[in-house]
Amino acid sequence: MIRFSREEYLDGARLTIESRKTAEEAADQIWREGYDNLFLTAVGGSTVPMMAAAAIVKEMTDLPVFVEQAAELAVRGNRNLTAKSVVVTLSKTGDTRETVEIAGICKGKGCRVVSFTRQEDSPLGRNSTFFIPMRHENGVEYEYMLIYWFVLRLLYLRGDFPEYPRFADQMEALPENLLRIKEEFDPRAEEIAAAYWKEPYMIWVGGNEMWGEVYMFTMCILEEMQWIRTKAVTSGEFFHGTLELVDENTAVFLVKGEGACRILDERAERFIRKYGKKYVILDPRDYDLVGIDQSFRWILAPAVISTILVDRLAAHMEAHTNHDLDYRRYYRQFDY
Amino acid sequence: MIRFSREEYLDGARLTIESRKTAEEAADQIWREGYDNLFLTAVGGSTVPMMAAAAIVKEMTDLPVFVEQAAELAVRGNRNLTAKSVVVTLSKTGDTRETVEIAGICKGKGCRVVSFTRQEDSPLGRNSTFFIPMRHENGVEYEYMLIYWFVLRLLYLRGDFPEYPRFADQMEALPENLLRIKEEFDPRAEEIAAAYWKEPYMIWVGGNEMWGEVYMFTMCILEEMQWIRTKAVTSGEFFHGTLELVDENTAVFLVKGEGACRILDERAERFIRKYGKKYVILDPRDYDLVGIDQSFRWILAPAVISTILVDRLAAHMEAHTNHDLDYRRYYRQFDY
Repeated sequence: MIRFSREEYLDGARLTIESRKTAEEAADQIWREGYDNLFLTAVGGSTVPMMAAAAIVKEMTDLPVFVEQAAELAVRGNRNLTAKSVVVTLSKTGDTRETVEIAGICKGKGCRVVSFTRQEDSPLGRNSTFFIPMRHENGVEYEYMLIYWFVLRLLYLRGDFPEYPRFADQMEALPENLLRIKEEFDPRAEEIAAAYWKEPYMIWVGGNEMWGEVYMFTMCILEEMQWIRTKAVTSGEFFHGTLELVDENTAVFLVKGEGACRILDERAERFIRKYGKKYVILDPRDYDLVGIDQSFRWILAPAVISTILVDRLAAHMEAHTNHDLDYRRYYRQFDY
Repeated sequence: MIRFSREEYLDGARLTIESRKTAEEAADQIWREGYDNLFLTAVGGSTVPMMAAAAIVKEMTDLPVFVEQAAELAVRGNRNLTAKSVVVTLSKTGDTRETVEIAGICKGKGCRVVSFTRQEDSPLGRNSTFFIPMRHENGVEYEYMLIYWFVLRLLYLRGDFPEYPRFADQMEALPENLLRIKEEFDPRAEEIAAAYWKEPYMIWVGGNEMWGEVYMFTMCILEEMQWIRTKAVTSGEFFHGTLELVDENTAVFLVKGEGACRILDERAERFIRKYGKKYVILDPRDYDLVGIDQSFRWILAPAVISTILVDRLAAHMEAHTNHDLDYRRYYRQFDY
């Protein structure tokens, strides 16, 4: 597979699984100490596994869980953010300005700050109460695994997710599944890229626990790394505006989920198949997850979609556009 | 002013102010009865004043306030939604499918459902516990006024917004201010429309309490009513992807706010002015609000922007594009 190292990927799996215990022990300690609510805060793509976790736990718990963009939270605050809050942040580099800042603000308020980042001795690590090593090179799926081992264990401890121990163990089988799924999807990624790389604009649709992936792939990959114009909209909201843009010349991508909101994806799918001409339907159900219970699939579906999009489709887009995924004209090039 | 009736607008103001007492009395009764949390739920443009209210109250209260897309909430649920929840819905026609459905589900659960709609004897009205008449013909600003008279009074009763009585009275002066602001903005609306109506794609930036307006104008006006492609992104998140699309050929609109997050709008503004060539900066601070305290301006800024965009700019766009704002090829044309 192009732009992919099997060795590096398996290394990422090993490093991620090594951090499971640290993530779970942080949850255990916080549970013992007590806490009032949970803030999940980051910027851009780092918020994505948090968006999924927050959408998923709506069905499981009445624990107040807030997802906040770090810069907004830093300048505006939130009256629910107190010394009894647990604040989760994530930044691979550990130096993302807004994330480092919000961690510092929250630590100063007396919150427990749980940070997922590469180095303990980084600006983010130094602003944290709990450091969860996140040492993989590539793969948003590894961020999901770590966030789930922390957030869903907190729910388990409250009695909101009794199946957690089985889920947490089975999640260790996710990387080998995703490796196989990458290989299965790879020819389709090439087909899609070959057919769509010249599109000047794409509509991407998908909702609830899948929304983060739609949000990220459009903004952080297509816009930031390929300079392709996009619109992202949830499957429910698609019918309240964006649908009017659908015609035979407009590229539409639908990301389906496997949870309760799948019915809304199916509604969008019927519409797109009927009135669109250029469309791609991406369905995590097309891929087996060996060793993982059917009932956990919807929780892992965002990671399945992430691996086929952020890893495979992006690589094949780059091969066609010749626009280097690593090139930025503005981002982190200078102060703004 | 084109596509505008002064008489109808002033009529809308009178009808809206007539409903103030009903909205406030509903809040008073709910406060006396007690409640655990507040759900604000609708679809598309009807969610917009709710988005603003939810963003604003983050700074005022620790009352749990949830904004939910009605279709997602209906199929997925939320563990915080109980018989002790207050559920606010809004639909001018009173027959929006998803909104009628969620109101029915919530009423069935024993929640108090507070609906802002035209007719008590509508599908939405019949699924509600409290009916707040919303009888104006046009003007999202009137939806803001009604939502604020309910939600911010609830906060006042909790002791979270002691300035409410003064704010609520002063809000009655909003329509006359907005009428003047429409007239002031109208020549600029024509200038902007003349310069930008041919743009095939626009980036719109704005965040926190202004986000709903950016969301709505792009999706419900430009996409749905003008078939113009758009990207909407918050001022904070703009720097994590979309910024890379800015170049001399890309139209960028920035909607500034007057609250704590203005500093993030200003950061986006500096970037856009430096690296963009085609841009429009819309700032509610350019307009006086006579008879309204400075300290309330940020709460009303979304209504100011709404009146200049949804009313004035949309009308001038239509005049140039010759694309009838009332024409739809799909929406509500048939079942899907």
